[in-house]
This record gives sequence, structure tokens and C-alpha cells, in this order.
Amino acid sequence: VTVRAGIVVTGTEVLSGIIRDENGPWLSEQLRGLGIELADVVVVGDRPDDLRAALDFLADLDLIITSGGLGPTADDLTAEIVADFAGRPLGLDPALEQRVLAIVSRLRTRFRDSSEEGMRAGARKQALVPEGAIVLEPVGTAPGLVVPGSPPVVVLPGPPGELRPMWETALATPPLREISSRAGTLEQRIMRIAGVPESELARLLRDVDVPLDRLEITTCLRRGELEIATVFDPAAADDYSALEAAVVDRFGERVFSRDGATIDEIVASLLLGPPVYTVAVAESCTGGLMAGRLTDRAGSSAYVLGGVVVYSNEAKVAHAGVDPDLIARVGAVSPEVAFALASGAAARFSAAIGIGITGIAGPGGGTPEKPVGMVCVCVAGPGDARIDRTLQLPGDRATVRDRTTTAVMHLLRRALLAGGTAAAA
Amino acid sequence: VTVRAGIVVTGTEVLSGIIRDENGPWLSEQLRGLGIELADVVVVGDRPDDLRAALDFLADLDLIITSGGLGPTADDLTAEIVADFAGRPLGLDPALEQRVLAIVSRLRTRFRDSSEEGMRAGARKQALVPEGAIVLEPVGTAPGLVVPGSPPVVVLPGPPGELRPMWETALATPPLREISSRAGTLEQRIMRIAGVPESELARLLRDVDVPLDRLEITTCLRRGELEIATVFDPAAADDYSALEAAVVDRFGERVFSRDGATIDEIVASLLLGPPVYTVAVAESCTGGLMAGRLTDRAGSSAYVLGGVVVYSNEAKVAHAGVDPDLIARVGAVSPEVAFALASGAAARFSAAIGIGITGIAGPGGGTPEKPVGMVCVCVAGPGDARIDRTLQLPGDRATVRDRTTTAVMHLLRRALLAGGTAAAA
Repeated sequence: VTVRAGIVVTGTEVLSGIIRDENGPWLSEQLRGLGIELADVVVVGDRPDDLRAALDFLADLDLIITSGGLGPTADDLTAEIVADFAGRPLGLDPALEQRVLAIVSRLRTRFRDSSEEGMRAGARKQALVPEGAIVLEPVGTAPGLVVPGSPPVVVLPGPPGELRPMWETALATPPLREISSRAGTLEQRIMRIAGVPESELARLLRDVDVPLDRLEITTCLRRGELEIATVFDPAAADDYSALEAAVVDRFGERVFSRDGATIDEIVASLLLGPPVYTVAVAESCTGGLMAGRLTDRAGSSAYVLGGVVVYSNEAKVAHAGVDPDLIARVGAVSPEVAFALASGAAARFSAAIGIGITGIAGPGGGTPEKPVGMVCVCVAGPGDARIDRTLQLPGDRATVRDRTTTAVMHLLRRALLAGGTAAAA
Repeated sequence: VTVRAGIVVTGTEVLSGIIRDENGPWLSEQLRGLGIELADVVVVGDRPDDLRAALDFLADLDLIITSGGLGPTADDLTAEIVADFAGRPLGLDPALEQRVLAIVSRLRTRFRDSSEEGMRAGARKQALVPEGAIVLEPVGTAPGLVVPGSPPVVVLPGPPGELRPMWETALATPPLREISSRAGTLEQRIMRIAGVPESELARLLRDVDVPLDRLEITTCLRRGELEIATVFDPAAADDYSALEAAVVDRFGERVFSRDGATIDEIVASLLLGPPVYTVAVAESCTGGLMAGRLTDRAGSSAYVLGGVVVYSNEAKVAHAGVDPDLIARVGAVSPEVAFALASGAAARFSAAIGIGITGIAGPGGGTPEKPVGMVCVCVAGPGDARIDRTLQLPGDRATVRDRTTTAVMHLLRRALLAGGTAAAA
């Protein structure tokens, strides 16, 4: 039997697209881990009737989770509307009121001028609890609720940093324990593939000689890579293994991850070795994003020695040691200059591996021979190894720049796998 | 009279949080521009019953827009379910079938092995049109639909690059023209503020002596800046002017944008002058993101001369000309080194303005004197101008790095405004 949940995300700023909802996707993943199927995410503004209508819409499900609308101000309505939906009148919890007041008073010292009176009114509002509901202690200033009923409603605050730990607390309450015991547990696995068009994957899934009816397969194209996420009952584990084998059989090396690890994680782990391989970047059209991506991870200072952003030809010559005659002869966007940038970066920073990137991110600057989206990349090292690619990337400036960094991450992986083999041999 | 719309976003990959929905926020903004109030965004998976339930839930509104589920494969169900919802049987449009087939055949040359038969089946499926519906010509491969009824349903494909131009086409169809003529037009204005806590803004809005009941005000904190977006009927323009005046009166200079321009747009425009001010970066903890942000915009090669990413002390000395004795004396994370980086960057790239960034992005590397989140930044130039800040930023590594670039953009704006004044004087 499938246990199903719905999520209501409240907040005009989310509905109007001003801020992105991070709670729906996060809760979705949590539910999947519990074997609970997510039916819908409904985003509503701070309007009482719309919130109530969303709750009514989800009333047939086994569980409702709300996020947002728990603050001290008048437009924070969730507790009141949920109480009404559950048929449980609101009552003041005086001990909770004192705890909220204590939190708010502590914070208050950080801001001048917040009024005593406003603070007390807010704490009182936040301490109104539907009869029989379980209070989730505030992580920020707002308490959450688990409101029993059918379905039970878990009421959580909007800030992700508060919602996430309070969700963990909610899981330990009797209504949630009861639901997760009914749900069982599903497995989730992720494969990642680079360099394969989505249609090829669709064809494989259509034709593959594996029973797929017990696997919930979701494929998607992200930053130029294909991701296959599959959810299944542990009883269907053999079906998943057969699917995985078929995918690897068809796409070989291009399946770069079978355990969900991202290319960034894989490259970081290869760079860290042992032995550690140091890396330096000389980049033109990506303008710092390649170095920025390599340094995204904590601990990257162990292997990223540095980089130069060399937009102009003069900068390429002065700061990456590119021969000006070479640029004059073959042009700045060329495999030769990409290699010169890679070698220059490695030499200047004394790195084991140099990365060179030169291309036309657009929208201007393209020619018939070197159109927008043409990017020459090179990974030089470790040792004498050298991998070049001339990419022709679709999309706008931001996409071309981003896809370039993804392509280089994959070249870096190849270089490191080859380098590791060579070192071991 | 308020005209209201609902959006249904379909796709298991969106519901499961694997990809982020970009269509809801975009359509939300479009609707606001038309004076149409968005009531709900419902995200559903590729399950026919859930999609139908979502349409039924939104049936009382004046307009429904769907995104996704228009592909050639079996799990693409939107056209069929919407036809059923609208009570309009599906029929084959043979001319559309030929047009889709022509598009798909062209694309096919890019991929080996796609089967003729599969292609024809897909095109036939995509050419099934509800009776009386208006076809929106494909931008990618999938046609969209405007299905008349009450409410009318606009059926759009999922990829944002296809959805957006097709939405423009949909606007010109009679059902949408009728709806937007009923809606009237609302004004939307955006103010942006830097360096003010959200609670201060909340207090101003609570106490301000301006009638706010005709203004729909949404405030939010984004990348460390406050945004105030206000939607109002043109008749309430005076109320908005009074609000704007009150905000500027209270926060002064910190209101850096009254026309919605972002700090990136403002800085780009100041750098472009005339006169053009050139800029170069030497960055440590941001690892390339500062240069990456400055080069995000097309045409940035006119003012960004380059940058260096100097993580290690050796790199700071070798590639940004920082005096090693200075680092030994005051430490790498210090206002002195930030200034040395800024001057070094300007000197090495012969730029009018140098930016220096050195800090502790975390999670490791903090000490009691120099905790995680402490970042020293400096903008040196134009001329002898110099602005330093020692920031203490909250949040994780990614947040610290991102907020640092925002803070530097604001310092750059100040430097340029001061520089412009000095040049004019």
C-alpha cells in the first residue's frame, strides 16, 4: 500500500518567484527516504482562503506538511488555518510563550529600537497551539507543530535552517512514527552519464530487456550531464542491478558515477589522491568560474594552487606566458592557445596539472569559423599527459560558461584516471 | 475585480527535487506584469490522476497554465488530460504532424541510431490536439496549446527556452487577450537596499505614515540585500511615491536602486562610463568567483582586464606582488594584505581599479581572532581612492563566498561614484 503526502509551501515571496522554495525539494527527498510518495507540492501566497483551499485539496492524502507562515506578524497565518482545518481550537501555551519570549529577548540585543510591546504580542501569537497538537521547539524563534488528525499536519517554519532540524524532531512524534512504519523503506540509486544525448537514454529505456515496472525511474539533463534516479522497493533490487548493468553495457566509460557521486566529488577525491595532484587554471571566457568551481569545496586549498583570468590577448601573454606570435598565427581561440594557457598555468603556479580555457561565450564575438559557443579547453598533466577538446556548446552566455566548466571537470577526471594508472605502472 | 490564475508544473523530476522549477517563478512575474494575480503553483508528478486532480483544484480560477508533459514518450500526458478536463476530444492535426516530423528529422541527423518508426510515433502523438484548441508552434519539438473553456488552459512545454517564447505567442490568442483586457494593468516597482537588517525594514513598514492598503508589498532578503517589490493599481501611484520617499528618507544612501536595477547592472554601467574604468582582481577565499561575477555580463571584456586566484601565501607573493614580510607580520587575512592584493592586481593588469579579497570561507581555518566568515576586502582606485572593509559574514562556505562578492560589488559602486565625482570636480 502506497503512503502519500502533500506539501504546502506558503509565502507570497515564494509564490511571486522572488525567492526560490528550497523546502519542497528537500522534504521531497526526505519523504522518498522514508518510502512515502509525494503527490503534490502546492505553493500559495499569504492569503487565508488559498491556504485553506490547499489543505482541503490535500485532505485525502496520508500526511500534509506545511512550511512558512509561523512568524510573529499578522500575515503569518498557518497555525490558525491548520487548527481550523483539523477542527482543533487554538489555545495559549503559557510555558511556550515564556520560552519564545526568552529567545526573542536574547536576539533583541542585536537590534536597536525593537519595542518591548511588539515583542510580547509576537510571542503570545506564536504560543497559540491547536488543542492536542505536539509542539516542536523553535530552532529560530518560531515553534512548529505536529497536529494529529486524518491526515496529520506537520507545521514547520519557512527558513530551511529551522525547518530541517525541526523535521527530524517531528519524525520522532507518534503520528509520524505511525506513518513511516506503514510506509516501509524504498531504495534510491543514482547513475550519472556524460556525453550521451537524452534521446539515446530514452531509447535504451524503451528497448532494454529488463522488467521496469517495479522501478520508478526519473531521468534528467543537468548542466550537460544525464542523471538517472531510480526508486524501488528492496524486493526489486535485482531488477535495478539488471538495469544498471544494461546502462553500463551500453554507455561504458560515459557512466561516470553509479553511486550518485557528482563529477565535482569524484575529481576532488582523485586530486586528493594519494598522491595529491596540484592544479592551476588559466581561463579566458569562463572568467574565473573554473577556478571558482574547483575551490567550491572545503579543503580545496590542498590541491588548487591558483589561477589567472586572462581575458585580453595582452593578459594571456603577460600572465599566462602565451607566445604572442602564436596568438597572431592561430588566434586566441584555438587548441594551441588552450594548451599554452594550460602549460603556462601549470608552470607559473608549479602545479602538476594545468587547465587552459579560451572561447567565445557570446552573445557577441562569434565569426563563421569561430562561432559563439566554441570553446577550446586543455588539461595538461600530470606529467606529459595532455587532453584537448574543442567544444561547440549551445545556449546563452551563462550556459556556455557553465557547461565549459563541466566539460573540463570530465577531462580532469580522465587525466587523473590516466595519470593514476601511469603512476601505478 | 481580481483576475486570478493557477499554474500546474508537471514532472516527477521537478516534484522529486531533482531539477528546480524555473517556469513557476517566471510565469508568476509575467502574470504580475499583466495584472493577473497568481493564486497557486501546484507541482505534480507524471501521474494522470494527480494531474487531473490539480486541474480540478484550480478550476474556479480565471486561467490555468501548465508546463511540461508534452514530449513524445508515454509518460507525457498533459495534452490528453487537459483535453479530458476541458471536455474536448483529441483529434489528429495532420499538417502539425508533418511539421513536427520535419523538425524531428532535422534534429535526428545529430544522433546516430534514432529509429524512423519511433520518430513517426512520437510526431503523431504530439500532433493530437483537443477540439477547438489553438496550436502554439513548437520552439523546440513540442507544440503547445491554448484550450478555450472556463477557465481556458494554456499548455506549454517544460524547457524554459521553449516555454518563454511560446507564452508570448499564447498572449496574442483571443482567450488570453480577453483575460488580460479584464485584468487591467498593475504597476510593479522594485527598490533594493544594502546594509539594513530585515527587522529594520519591517519596523519601518509597520510605523510608516503612508496608507499601505492599496500596495501589495513583498520584502525579501537575497544574497545579503533587501528587495522591496511592490505591485499596485496605477490609481495608487501617489501612495507608492510616499512609501518610496519614506524608505529613502529612513535608509538614505543604502537604498541603492529605485528602478529595480541590480547592483551588477549598476556597477557595469558605472564601469562603462564614459570614461571606462578598467578593473582587475586578486582573490583568495572567493577563488575566482569575484572575477566570474564581474565577467557574467556580455561586454564585460571592455572593463575586466583579468584576475588572479591566489590561495596560498606563495601565490600571493608570486602572482599579486604581496610582500612576504607583510604576510609574516600581519597574516594573510588582514586589511593590509587585502590592500596589497588590490594594488598588486591593478599594477599587474594596468587596471584603474584593483580588487583584493582575502578571508576564511570555512568550514575549517578559523581562529578566535580570525573566525570563519572573516573576510578582508579592498577596492583600490580609481586614482588614490581606497575603500577597505573587514566583513564578518554568517553562513556556510558557499554563502560566505557569495556574500563577499556582493559586498565587493557595493564597494565598487561607492568607489566609482566617488571616482566619478572626483573626475568631474
